[in-house]
Amino acid sequence: MIHSIVWLKHECTVQTVEGRRNWGILERLNAGEVVIGDGGFVIALEKRGYVKAGPWTPEATVTHPEAVRQLHREFLRAGANVMQTFTFYSSDDKLENRGQSLKYTGAQINEAACDLAKEVASEGDALVAGGVCQTPSYLSCKSETEVKAIFKKQMEVYIKKNVDFLIAEYFEHVEEAEWAVQVLKTGGKPVAASMCIGPEGDMHGVSPAECAVRLVKAGSQIIGVNCHFDPMTCVQAVKMMKAGVEKAGLKAHYMVQPLAYHTPECNCQGHIELPEFPFALEPRTLTRWDMHKYAREAYKVGIRFIGGCCGFEPYHIRAVAEELAPERGIMPPGSEKHGMWGSALEMHTKPWVRARSRREYWENVMPASGRPKCPSLSTPECWGVTKGHADLLQHKEATSTQEMKHVLEMQKKAKSSA
Amino acid sequence: MIHSIVWLKHECTVQTVEGRRNWGILERLNAGEVVIGDGGFVIALEKRGYVKAGPWTPEATVTHPEAVRQLHREFLRAGANVMQTFTFYSSDDKLENRGQSLKYTGAQINEAACDLAKEVASEGDALVAGGVCQTPSYLSCKSETEVKAIFKKQMEVYIKKNVDFLIAEYFEHVEEAEWAVQVLKTGGKPVAASMCIGPEGDMHGVSPAECAVRLVKAGSQIIGVNCHFDPMTCVQAVKMMKAGVEKAGLKAHYMVQPLAYHTPECNCQGHIELPEFPFALEPRTLTRWDMHKYAREAYKVGIRFIGGCCGFEPYHIRAVAEELAPERGIMPPGSEKHGMWGSALEMHTKPWVRARSRREYWENVMPASGRPKCPSLSTPECWGVTKGHADLLQHKEATSTQEMKHVLEMQKKAKSSA
Amino acid sequence: MIHSIVWLKHECTVQTVEGRRNWGILERLNAGEVVIGDGGFVIALEKRGYVKAGPWTPEATVTHPEAVRQLHREFLRAGANVMQTFTFYSSDDKLENRGQSLKYTGAQINEAACDLAKEVASEGDALVAGGVCQTPSYLSCKSETEVKAIFKKQMEVYIKKNVDFLIAEYFEHVEEAEWAVQVLKTGGKPVAASMCIGPEGDMHGVSPAECAVRLVKAGSQIIGVNCHFDPMTCVQAVKMMKAGVEKAGLKAHYMVQPLAYHTPECNCQGHIELPEFPFALEPRTLTRWDMHKYAREAYKVGIRFIGGCCGFEPYHIRAVAEELAPERGIMPPGSEKHGMWGSALEMHTKPWVRARSRREYWENVMPASGRPKCPSLSTPECWGVTKGHADLLQHKEATSTQEMKHVLEMQKKAKSSA
Amino acid sequence: MIHSIVWLKHECTVQTVEGRRNWGILERLNAGEVVIGDGGFVIALEKRGYVKAGPWTPEATVTHPEAVRQLHREFLRAGANVMQTFTFYSSDDKLENRGQSLKYTGAQINEAACDLAKEVASEGDALVAGGVCQTPSYLSCKSETEVKAIFKKQMEVYIKKNVDFLIAEYFEHVEEAEWAVQVLKTGGKPVAASMCIGPEGDMHGVSPAECAVRLVKAGSQIIGVNCHFDPMTCVQAVKMMKAGVEKAGLKAHYMVQPLAYHTPECNCQGHIELPEFPFALEPRTLTRWDMHKYAREAYKVGIRFIGGCCGFEPYHIRAVAEELAPERGIMPPGSEKHGMWGSALEMHTKPWVRARSRREYWENVMPASGRPKCPSLSTPECWGVTKGHADLLQHKEATSTQEMKHVLEMQKKAKSSA
Repeated sequence: MIHSIVWLKHECTVQTVEGRRNWGILERLNAGEVVIGDGGFVIALEKRGYVKAGPWTPEATVTHPEAVRQLHREFLRAGANVMQTFTFYSSDDKLENRGQSLKYTGAQINEAACDLAKEVASEGDALVAGGVCQTPSYLSCKSETEVKAIFKKQMEVYIKKNVDFLIAEYFEHVEEAEWAVQVLKTGGKPVAASMCIGPEGDMHGVSPAECAVRLVKAGSQIIGVNCHFDPMTCVQAVKMMKAGVEKAGLKAHYMVQPLAYHTPECNCQGHIELPEFPFALEPRTLTRWDMHKYAREAYKVGIRFIGGCCGFEPYHIRAVAEELAPERGIMPPGSEKHGMWGSALEMHTKPWVRARSRREYWENVMPASGRPKCPSLSTPECWGVTKGHADLLQHKEATSTQEMKHVLEMQKKAKSSA
Repeated sequence: MIHSIVWLKHECTVQTVEGRRNWGILERLNAGEVVIGDGGFVIALEKRGYVKAGPWTPEATVTHPEAVRQLHREFLRAGANVMQTFTFYSSDDKLENRGQSLKYTGAQINEAACDLAKEVASEGDALVAGGVCQTPSYLSCKSETEVKAIFKKQMEVYIKKNVDFLIAEYFEHVEEAEWAVQVLKTGGKPVAASMCIGPEGDMHGVSPAECAVRLVKAGSQIIGVNCHFDPMTCVQAVKMMKAGVEKAGLKAHYMVQPLAYHTPECNCQGHIELPEFPFALEPRTLTRWDMHKYAREAYKVGIRFIGGCCGFEPYHIRAVAEELAPERGIMPPGSEKHGMWGSALEMHTKPWVRARSRREYWENVMPASGRPKCPSLSTPECWGVTKGHADLLQHKEATSTQEMKHVLEMQKKAKSSA
Repeated sequence: MIHSIVWLKHECTVQTVEGRRNWGILERLNAGEVVIGDGGFVIALEKRGYVKAGPWTPEATVTHPEAVRQLHREFLRAGANVMQTFTFYSSDDKLENRGQSLKYTGAQINEAACDLAKEVASEGDALVAGGVCQTPSYLSCKSETEVKAIFKKQMEVYIKKNVDFLIAEYFEHVEEAEWAVQVLKTGGKPVAASMCIGPEGDMHGVSPAECAVRLVKAGSQIIGVNCHFDPMTCVQAVKMMKAGVEKAGLKAHYMVQPLAYHTPECNCQGHIELPEFPFALEPRTLTRWDMHKYAREAYKVGIRFIGGCCGFEPYHIRAVAEELAPERGIMPPGSEKHGMWGSALEMHTKPWVRARSRREYWENVMPASGRPKCPSLSTPECWGVTKGHADLLQHKEATSTQEMKHVLEMQKKAKSSA
Repeated sequence: MIHSIVWLKHECTVQTVEGRRNWGILERLNAGEVVIGDGGFVIALEKRGYVKAGPWTPEATVTHPEAVRQLHREFLRAGANVMQTFTFYSSDDKLENRGQSLKYTGAQINEAACDLAKEVASEGDALVAGGVCQTPSYLSCKSETEVKAIFKKQMEVYIKKNVDFLIAEYFEHVEEAEWAVQVLKTGGKPVAASMCIGPEGDMHGVSPAECAVRLVKAGSQIIGVNCHFDPMTCVQAVKMMKAGVEKAGLKAHYMVQPLAYHTPECNCQGHIELPEFPFALEPRTLTRWDMHKYAREAYKVGIRFIGGCCGFEPYHIRAVAEELAPERGIMPPGSEKHGMWGSALEMHTKPWVRARSRREYWENVMPASGRPKCPSLSTPECWGVTKGHADLLQHKEATSTQEMKHVLEMQKKAKSSA
């Protein structure tokens, strides 16, 4: 389990880990431990061929469990302490709208997801978190009762499967996030709540500080943000949340699971605004060295549940774990295949690559895009449509030609006024 | 063959495939078929946590077969017709120099690699290719006999495991590539030879045309290039090879397996020259749309074995297969999770993303790096050391402080004269 | 005087201009006219060989009057309605510190400057403005009395030479600007006050709104910003000034004379923070089309005295004048040598250049830097030293080796913490 | 000659200069002296408001002599030893096509140009060169006799005005350049010939080497290239010319007068191909430090007549003269207002700018564009039309709507195939 950490004197580490094997998420955070999250599954599995961009649904837990299991294992090996069930967009209302000829219910997908996460978590030092996220029902203005019923149905699977804790994540509207937290609280497990917002707040302009206070009041013990923005932007948003909670005299733990894409020019809806989303984001991908900076910054701000979302590959999580190894007293298993700060390049054939086997080199590298005809920044595209807008209504039928024509017209208009 | 398919009726496709199920590589190429290669394993598995950058050896075939198997499966699903054994740098001389405390022989690693490749190949329409690549023995000026003995030892495993054909790949010096081909020819299987060179030719300045002629004369039926340069540069180099072969009145099939990184500024040794190699190449990663252009260009030039090397993820291979679907009359299995040219974005929540569900959009997108303080191109670093140079000698001991000091001094000198 | 404006129906224009020939700056602004300023002399004449970067003093008015006169003429021809005397940094305290062996007093330089500006102004429809700017005495914490005496000495020349109005410009500290305005008010001429600040306010963090209110209360009828930031940033700062003045129930006219360099990454001290200042700013230079956007935006915000500062060449001012020609009812004389929106390219030899003779083309061009190894943005360097800091003290002696060593050490420290 | 000068004692310099005051261009070059050329007038005066982009004709010599005289003076002051008459495109056939209502003959313009150049040359150590350039008559396939008659008419003015030597410059076709040289040779003055070509040769693909040989055989004593490409590209082209001449056993002196714009992506027709030509080239402008590198490189290659063309401002020529001051034993007059390698920044107010008063800083600065949404390189647009093509025919009438429609269609076609 524990691997030789040359530069850390930590014989005690093994003991510590063994000693707290059955600690839950709150025990760990209360003890001041750093909990490493995993990375996003949707984008990683899209690239591997198991998720369809557009619908983004996770039926692969049933159809290709080996692919989902393997990705869990890679994140575990990279140092993750949390295996999130791969249940993004697996509420029945979403599956119905997106599924076309899908043969699986939400319950089937979610049960399979729990089994996979639990199987891999048991192979190492990880907890299982069952997740819910924003629903098309909310965007279509269904009632609180209807929306909450959707969350409840998902939660019942997680409780039945006895996951370790619950996460309400990827919410653009704090109201819906509160509803989710209120439902999840009934499960009797610790509840984390994570919104996909940046420093500008939720889609109605509710500030991160106010979102945070409302989520804590709704009952979540851990709050933070995930997806939509790059690491530094997300850390900034969580910092604002923390300030809000503290100003209100409340208490919480903090989490952050950002994109692995640089999005400095994004405002309200993050990378979804970028013209490169979702099929040309490659040049924005963070390096492992960017991840060291992110992990350090998140730690400094006081965040202790530090993971990733879209764009994170296992090596990104490993970099987070390596940066915080001194604080955690443990190196991730996957570091057996990684020289800290590139030290294993000492064994590269070419001498000039051997000369790069040191921290100073990689901390200062300025990676070129290799694309001299492309710009550094794009013009984000954000139409400002939100809950209740006709263009956000979803239905079983594929987008009609008429609808698409309307959408293209709106895009043209948006561009000319940019 | 079926052309202009909007989407293929899978049933008829299978029949076609079944009809030629036991065709070998030459039968396929002779019949004018396009053979899709797989992508590189070394970089993909480094990111997943199973290969160590620096030594770059493939002991994961023994230690983590599930990870290797999964990557094979993803490439198969993406449309690859060739499963290359994951045997890069698995010659005994390399393993000895790089292994430190390795417990596995080259034979063990290579046998496991064959088993994994064959297992997955049997799940679809793919052939297995056993591979050898350049050796530290050659760079250290060992004799032809000694170097050939190394290739022979590897080949014997492939023959014993009855792979479908053999590839001598990743050679910087045509002389060593010839030696490899001469050995592989004794195995009685078709032989492909692929050098890691660009339009400037091999490390001694032998032109692609001359390299090609020598490889054909040495006995390889398929020739081309792999690794070190971006797709368009590699296609250009193979074009020069083809012209050389034709001018010499010879015949061959052509293959190309380039990087998935844009390297427009590289000259002699490709991406290894770049200051970003190997840990900050992310911004150079090709999008799937870049891959469409690559596949089309390779096809136009007359190359029929089209695959990838370092940086390729399964979705890159899928894009190659999708671009050439009209010519091949078949879509890859993984396309069930991909809307051709982004068409599945019709089902995205946000309307402005739905507006991107069309070819015209993605063909013209200019992806930004999100890094305004980084340049577009770097200054390549190429010291011109080659076969026999002291700095290329490898030994079991880790690089000494003294050696590293020397290397850093040389780097400083190289930079100041750049 | 008035030239054929094909697209404007403005026979009346000539009359108007003639009719108000002896209008002063306030009459024009009160009547709602747009007054076009000139561009900066310091940088333009540095490039022509008459100003020394570092000291930046204007002794050329005495030593090379023909060069100064010619630049005035070019701005007049470009459409400028204001000829500012070339008297930047021509206070005696500055000249003494910077002059080494200078043989000219401030009075001599300033008188010559007035003569040149008046001579050229009389050749067209322009007013003469005498200017003062921030002093080393203030930065060195001399008393209000001492600092005011310096302004007074300069002003007396302008009154003697009977300029049309006075400008206190390029102030980083509102307190010193107020002192300048208080002195200039005693001259009995209209007074404009322009600070070199951005949206973050002056060097002590006094907001643009508060600076504005204080300057109006000190007596200036026209307020705004100049230098240090790019056009859009400067317009933004003036907008904040205007809001402050209006909120305070006061009244003023507004002016803006920004850089002709893009400085999106600058904060407190503008382009002076950039590593490219002052000898590598070329790639940031605005095109004439950028100037059209600037002029339009400034006009929209309600600014009516619109000119330029460092980096502006005559063609930049002409673009401002051309953009606002519909509002002004007049084209600048220099437009006889310029096809509006590139229309004269119709007569270019190459047909593809003829195809660019239209507004749509130039409004959408994205100019490349031709420097793929350079970044898009830099890391500004701002040490936060301000009034009274030892490093800002100036003296007659050249910087000593000891001082330079100290400065280099501080720079190294600043960089490593960036 | 004086080497390693920190600053030259002006008195001794003058003596040296006096000693050879009436040396001609060939005496200087034969003696191994470096002759500094001036910069381009067309673009510089377009920015100042005296030349119209599109027609590009030099009637300002008559209409605004003070502006032309001032630019001559600035180049002289910057160190130029050659004052080229401002006679670009002043052949009668061009003036007729471009002039619309022009009231001046070529002879009038050219005589005025000679007077201005001679007046300023006499103020310093400079020679006057009368120039001819390519004609619309040649592009329209007029006969050799007709084209030569045009050159002869221009030359007669130069002979009458007794200029020091003649330059045939800006030729895209070597045949026309030969004709020009043949005519100019009859004047009895030294003849220089300079083509606007790059390493790919003239518009019919005649290599620089062959062009060079033909020009030498036609009688020019000095050959080289000007305009169209950036300094390093031009130096490369002249290097190829020199190799050709030497291989042919001939002798010549070499000149280079490149753009002051970075054009690394240009091929056949240089900056004219760029989408930014002529109104958005600003970000490509070379810094003075780029000019130091250019001057050094040109000198190394063996070029001894080193000047500039479009984009050069006086400070660019000064940088060339400063770089070669050790070889020339003389600093340009304008350096009194310039600290070598930025040394005068020692007297800047801000300490961090003082820290830049040294060569190491400026040699390594990587200037940012300040435009993160713009690319580094553009896609050149070159239609391949050349001599005799209908789209190059010129006539007195302005381009008709019909013609422009045709041109726009061709552009659209060219873009879609790029």
